[in-house]
Amino acid sequence: MTINIPRGTQDILPGTVEKWQYIENVAREICNQYQYKEIRTPIFEHTELFERGVGDTTDIVQKEMYTFQDRGERSLTLRPEGTAGTVRSFVQHKMFGQANQPVKLFYNGPMFRYERPQAGRFRQFVQFGVEAIGSDDPVIDAEVISLAMELYKRVGLNELKLVLNSLGDTDSRVAHKEALIAHFKPRINEFCSDCQIRLEKNPLRILDCKKDRDHELMASAPSLADYLNEESKAYFEKVQHYLSLMGIEFELDPNLVRGLDYYNHTAFEIMSSAKGFGAITTLCGGGRYNGLIEDLGGPSAPGIGFALSIERLLSALDAEKIELPVSGTLDCYFISMGDKAKDKTVELAFKARQQGLSAEMDTLRRKMKAQMKSADRLKAKHVAILGENELEAGTITVKHLESGSQEIINIDGLIDYLKQS
Amino acid sequence: MTINIPRGTQDILPGTVEKWQYIENVAREICNQYQYKEIRTPIFEHTELFERGVGDTTDIVQKEMYTFQDRGERSLTLRPEGTAGTVRSFVQHKMFGQANQPVKLFYNGPMFRYERPQAGRFRQFVQFGVEAIGSDDPVIDAEVISLAMELYKRVGLNELKLVLNSLGDTDSRVAHKEALIAHFKPRINEFCSDCQIRLEKNPLRILDCKKDRDHELMASAPSLADYLNEESKAYFEKVQHYLSLMGIEFELDPNLVRGLDYYNHTAFEIMSSAKGFGAITTLCGGGRYNGLIEDLGGPSAPGIGFALSIERLLSALDAEKIELPVSGTLDCYFISMGDKAKDKTVELAFKARQQGLSAEMDTLRRKMKAQMKSADRLKAKHVAILGENELEAGTITVKHLESGSQEIINIDGLIDYLKQS
Repeated sequence: MTINIPRGTQDILPGTVEKWQYIENVAREICNQYQYKEIRTPIFEHTELFERGVGDTTDIVQKEMYTFQDRGERSLTLRPEGTAGTVRSFVQHKMFGQANQPVKLFYNGPMFRYERPQAGRFRQFVQFGVEAIGSDDPVIDAEVISLAMELYKRVGLNELKLVLNSLGDTDSRVAHKEALIAHFKPRINEFCSDCQIRLEKNPLRILDCKKDRDHELMASAPSLADYLNEESKAYFEKVQHYLSLMGIEFELDPNLVRGLDYYNHTAFEIMSSAKGFGAITTLCGGGRYNGLIEDLGGPSAPGIGFALSIERLLSALDAEKIELPVSGTLDCYFISMGDKAKDKTVELAFKARQQGLSAEMDTLRRKMKAQMKSADRLKAKHVAILGENELEAGTITVKHLESGSQEIINIDGLIDYLKQS
Repeated sequence: MTINIPRGTQDILPGTVEKWQYIENVAREICNQYQYKEIRTPIFEHTELFERGVGDTTDIVQKEMYTFQDRGERSLTLRPEGTAGTVRSFVQHKMFGQANQPVKLFYNGPMFRYERPQAGRFRQFVQFGVEAIGSDDPVIDAEVISLAMELYKRVGLNELKLVLNSLGDTDSRVAHKEALIAHFKPRINEFCSDCQIRLEKNPLRILDCKKDRDHELMASAPSLADYLNEESKAYFEKVQHYLSLMGIEFELDPNLVRGLDYYNHTAFEIMSSAKGFGAITTLCGGGRYNGLIEDLGGPSAPGIGFALSIERLLSALDAEKIELPVSGTLDCYFISMGDKAKDKTVELAFKARQQGLSAEMDTLRRKMKAQMKSADRLKAKHVAILGENELEAGTITVKHLESGSQEIINIDGLIDYLKQS
């Protein structure tokens, strides 16, 4: 009996995995250019980290986490996102004391959410993200946004929309929160039970509610934009100014919120505007979280970051019909006739690989014709054919598959020949 | 209050992560040269897969797995190793029907075992491994072994020991198993309770027992080597023959066993023989598993593979005092004085990055001297300094940090200047 893959997860197989490798290489390259360094945190963390770092009123924490007890009865959770673990590591390793500030990090790896599987949504998915911790210069906000945009641009996406908002500083948010409570409280019994809880805990998240989104109080709710104080406005203008200097276009959307208390100032999303892209158009989300580091036991330090899903990025590429320039290369396929010639090709193939060439040979004892077919299928550049007679003469036949031309060369010169052609 | 990393796991931080990236790049490069393609399977699988694919009498399955129920009450397990998932994927996606045979795959990713944490042993660790499925040519055995050796060699390890054994084919193993039972049965009550169970289920694993290893019956136990039939002997000789052709040295060790029923023929381990390397000297283990694919619901297909831990590889590098050639590069650090000059450097840094250069600038509003220190610490190749006067004149000062030489150039020519030097 066969055992299948767990629901909501996928295998990434040869033929597809090359796209992932390509995107990851581009991401790593850009991160080096922007001077963000990789960090790798564990796949699971103490559950409490996400309750505090993602927020215990969120859907993620309440409904979507893979939580379990280990054999030592600790409650562990497969990470549903990358920021909490990164900030935990920042605090634990006291990176706030490092000479180079701000600390600029990136991560790339699997995340886990128990959601209903649907097109483009997996229970295990891969997020690439960056975090810049230690600077509250609006240049950093623009830099982080531009890094995400640059990644999309370099893989070839054209139809993108960048949407920005400011959540303001703490004072602005408190003023807005009070206005929201005053707005919803009188009629909160008309809202869903989740929203009734949100009114107390985090009224901003009412605006995110999918059940109540058509309620008339939604459209008339006080906008955060009207509660931003002068400093918050000036900060947001600077972010926009720097983005403009970089030639990055954006739209403002006062309804773009991030539901957690420690988010403030800049919030942004990048969407695909490609036709034929699914209902979920958001490719990337990020924002400033100047309260999070303190919330997780660190000093008061400003931070900003984003996360983007590689699966969504691939969907956006599909929607724009972009083919990534990935292709396998095989320098030489070895064909031999007879045991002695096979010995020699084993030796040659191994040497070729040692010297940086890619090489393949038959291991199914197939006839020469079948081996030639294999070489074709693998798009080998050259085929090297060795029979007993040639072996005795110290020569080998090399065929260039694309042109069909072939020549007989000295066997000792084969590897140099392959390297030079 | 801070939240720490889960016990037995580690963060891989900038300064160390570069070594991981380096090793992974080398591994990927070699796999391309050997024509092994990457596969990525999920972090968790149905628990049953490991019970069947790793073996329910093993320590891994009995004591070390992270097993939990998801919200749909499926029993899932964080993968303790990479072969079972790879073979599950091979069967599920019917790769046995692909045109290119054998199917040659590699993986690289985190694995999970609940073990007592100790030096060099983690509960989350990273394994790189390959699997070649579909050929029973001894050339493939030699190829797989040589791939592992090549990886160690390319990262610079010298003090390695390759140990080989043959477990023979099924007939040989059955004959040996019967001899083992006859040997141990009369005095099995002198052995530990685990061994008493092993006698029935898998007597070969008695030879692995750490508790009973000094019992006199251990040394006198019938050796598998004496039970190999002619075909098995011929197969093993071929493997050794091909390894010799490749110039790879090895030792034979008749006590090297792999405890699972579906293992047969070639078994191998690679050890570090470096002084100062810890008690656990095995870096890599692998072998042939011609029964596994069928056990997991696929057709009868021969397979062979290995797995190696990146953590152990790093320890072996330390033991041999080998420094990997990793180093960050920063092409240009931008320093500005005044808001207008800052605007210009934001623009320049962004453009430089777009054109493939790495660039950094201050975002902490520090004095010029502190910025120069940053540039030094980051080992910037150049520092570009822009003041208000220069901005007006359309020039910028570029300093080459290593030589200390500096010149004033036209600001529009800066990026070309950086690219060419």
